[in-house]
Amino acid sequence: MSLLSTRTASRLLSVADLDDAATADAHCDLMCGVYNPAQARIEAESVLEIMKKYNASDDDYFRTRCIIIKEERAQLAKEHLWVLWTDYFKPPHVEQFPQLHDLFWRATKAAGDAKKSNEEADGQKLLDLIDEIAGIFAETKK
Amino acid sequence: MSLLSTRTASRLLSVADLDDAATADAHCDLMCGVYNPAQARIEAESVLEIMKKYNASDDDYFRTRCIIIKEERAQLAKEHLWVLWTDYFKPPHVEQFPQLHDLFWRATKAAGDAKKSNEEADGQKLLDLIDEIAGIFAETKK
Amino acid sequence: MSLLSTRTASRLLSVADLDDAATADAHCDLMCGVYNPAQARIEAESVLEIMKKYNASDDDYFRTRCIIIKEERAQLAKEHLWVLWTDYFKPPHVEQFPQLHDLFWRATKAAGDAKKSNEEADGQKLLDLIDEIAGIFAETKK
Amino acid sequence: MSLLSTRTASRLLSVADLDDAATADAHCDLMCGVYNPAQARIEAESVLEIMKKYNASDDDYFRTRCIIIKEERAQLAKEHLWVLWTDYFKPPHVEQFPQLHDLFWRATKAAGDAKKSNEEADGQKLLDLIDEIAGIFAETKK
Amino acid sequence: MSLLSTRTASRLLSVADLDDAATADAHCDLMCGVYNPAQARIEAESVLEIMKKYNASDDDYFRTRCIIIKEERAQLAKEHLWVLWTDYFKPPHVEQFPQLHDLFWRATKAAGDAKKSNEEADGQKLLDLIDEIAGIFAETKK
Amino acid sequence: MSLLSTRTASRLLSVADLDDAATADAHCDLMCGVYNPAQARIEAESVLEIMKKYNASDDDYFRTRCIIIKEERAQLAKEHLWVLWTDYFKPPHVEQFPQLHDLFWRATKAAGDAKKSNEEADGQKLLDLIDEIAGIFAETKK
Repeated sequence: MSLLSTRTASRLLSVADLDDAATADAHCDLMCGVYNPAQARIEAESVLEIMKKYNASDDDYFRTRCIIIKEERAQLAKEHLWVLWTDYFKPPHVEQFPQLHDLFWRATKAAGDAKKSNEEADGQKLLDLIDEIAGIFAETKK
Repeated sequence: MSLLSTRTASRLLSVADLDDAATADAHCDLMCGVYNPAQARIEAESVLEIMKKYNASDDDYFRTRCIIIKEERAQLAKEHLWVLWTDYFKPPHVEQFPQLHDLFWRATKAAGDAKKSNEEADGQKLLDLIDEIAGIFAETKK
Repeated sequence: MSLLSTRTASRLLSVADLDDAATADAHCDLMCGVYNPAQARIEAESVLEIMKKYNASDDDYFRTRCIIIKEERAQLAKEHLWVLWTDYFKPPHVEQFPQLHDLFWRATKAAGDAKKSNEEADGQKLLDLIDEIAGIFAETKK
Repeated sequence: MSLLSTRTASRLLSVADLDDAATADAHCDLMCGVYNPAQARIEAESVLEIMKKYNASDDDYFRTRCIIIKEERAQLAKEHLWVLWTDYFKPPHVEQFPQLHDLFWRATKAAGDAKKSNEEADGQKLLDLIDEIAGIFAETKK
Repeated sequence: MSLLSTRTASRLLSVADLDDAATADAHCDLMCGVYNPAQARIEAESVLEIMKKYNASDDDYFRTRCIIIKEERAQLAKEHLWVLWTDYFKPPHVEQFPQLHDLFWRATKAAGDAKKSNEEADGQKLLDLIDEIAGIFAETKK
Repeated sequence: MSLLSTRTASRLLSVADLDDAATADAHCDLMCGVYNPAQARIEAESVLEIMKKYNASDDDYFRTRCIIIKEERAQLAKEHLWVLWTDYFKPPHVEQFPQLHDLFWRATKAAGDAKKSNEEADGQKLLDLIDEIAGIFAETKK
């Protein structure tokens, strides 16, 4: 990220350039109107990092804290995904992407699995499913 | 976002390319290890959108819901900012960016002000302060 | 409920007679192991009752409290449904009940709609969808 | 539950037959109007199941997760009981059931004890106290 | 408070002088070991102040925010009281103060009433009941 | 506390004598209007007590519960401090106490450190920093 100006950085962080009505597509016309798969992804990245730290440590106290915090982060990933599924996507999206329901089901199950496991592959699987969702999300913004 | 491939989209969503250890700087070495000003920004975008919807409506029921939800979203923006301030930034950052404490204080106060007001300028001010923080955050990643 | 003995009442409240291993099917073999559509239904009943009270009142203060509390109760209904969908149901259930994903999607959307509306029909629709889910849930327990 | 029709299943889940005003006694005339000891019981069942799983396992990671989740479930049982005690029951109930205060005190203390212990008898004691409360609750509905 | 030194101020804030084992009676021997009726009282003070501000204002937007925040503060007062009742007090306390259960019941009901009303007398009643509890609490520390 | 009358005890618990407008300085003129460093201190006392119990025990189950609960209590201490910093203090306070920002930063970091450690010195450090804040808070009330 080292070449980014402040202005560019903030653009990347934004789901929509709010100065530009023509592209203000990042929020739907619902009440809570701003959606972004980044919310789930940030939590899922945290889950994977915690797994790595857990596996690299042999300190019981530290590892217990890893379990506690991973439980919370994976739950947040799950909740962000549920909100996206129920609140952002509409029937025409499901017609266009018939895999959508199953994809979210597998992604939220993967978040549950990431609580039960410290296998980094389980954390990566959650990230991959979120990326797949993010890809569809980006398609709906075209 | 219409020109982005799925792969690119997921990269933008990520604070770090997790496949590339050399740039895996988006998380610090603390426990909760993944930080991203996007979390605060997404909530702040929601705050501004709610203000716009409130101002465009004359339905009492809808406007009451706007107030309830804006209260929650502004609180989340505040909390994400507090976590970033306390947990991500370290003494050398404060030396390099002496305005940091005051900037976070004004940004979290702006989140409080955005609860009290429906002036879109107050919502924009919160976003601008978060962008200023995001700029510093990006600098620390160089 | 006036004819029920205490013993019978507690049986109705229970999803499984815990003294009887042969019927202890109310929890699956997952960690959080106890599932019950009653959790979502109780919240949804509350949503409908609040709508009725809202519509029967002309006290602004009372009606504002109705909106606040309905928002919370509908959110809880939504969350209980999400947990049931992701955590209780397994791939063989989806094969047997191919409508499952769509049913949960419509039910959680109905919980969202019940936030936006005070039409009692919207509250009843949420209850009907939960009852449809409860029927499938009961089938999986046979 | 295998002999129940969908319709019957949903009736059991309901605290009141909402189609039948004459029996709509499951909610009181307060704001949050719907009460049901099932909410506490479902969490308490979960507490007992977690104890069983904890005792049957020798996997440290799994057992730590048991402790974390049991802590949450017992807390929820406690909170549902507190709400029932303060919000549902009225002075005439206390006259009719003079043991009510002490019963709730012991039940909420039992929920606390179920955090501190993995003795299944402690989980069962919590369930028994909730059933005793559910019996009184059912009496007040006659 | 203007005559208090910093040291004295912090002593008042403390439930126990932690440097002095002989007076370390502010926590019981339970896990969560530190109890203080001040937690409920601070929230109840907030409830009364919000009522005053609500009554002094004729700004609909401000008054709606008052209702939202009072709902939360009264709930926190309720929760702190419930914890104190269940977790701090033991059977010998109930023998010594037979009014204890009823007092907590009325106090938590008063917290509920303070949600439903903007009568400052209702806020004051909650404070008075908390003070009565604080008096008993102080007695148990003698 | 054994020499205090009930009336005196309740006064100590109060941040302001609400019957006496002249001294009603314990709440500022903001919405949430009642502030008190006691909220953070009570949680921090709990953190230190939990550390002591953890260190005095060799029961794995008990120690895991200590870690879970300490995590929550330290988080609450952190949150109460953040609220005080952002919501109570105003620019003139910062002019008068230029160390304020840094003091809160170190205090909230100390709350984070108290999660990571069971060194009682880390718990005491958090308490000392809160007392330093409480001293400044008392100064602003003169």
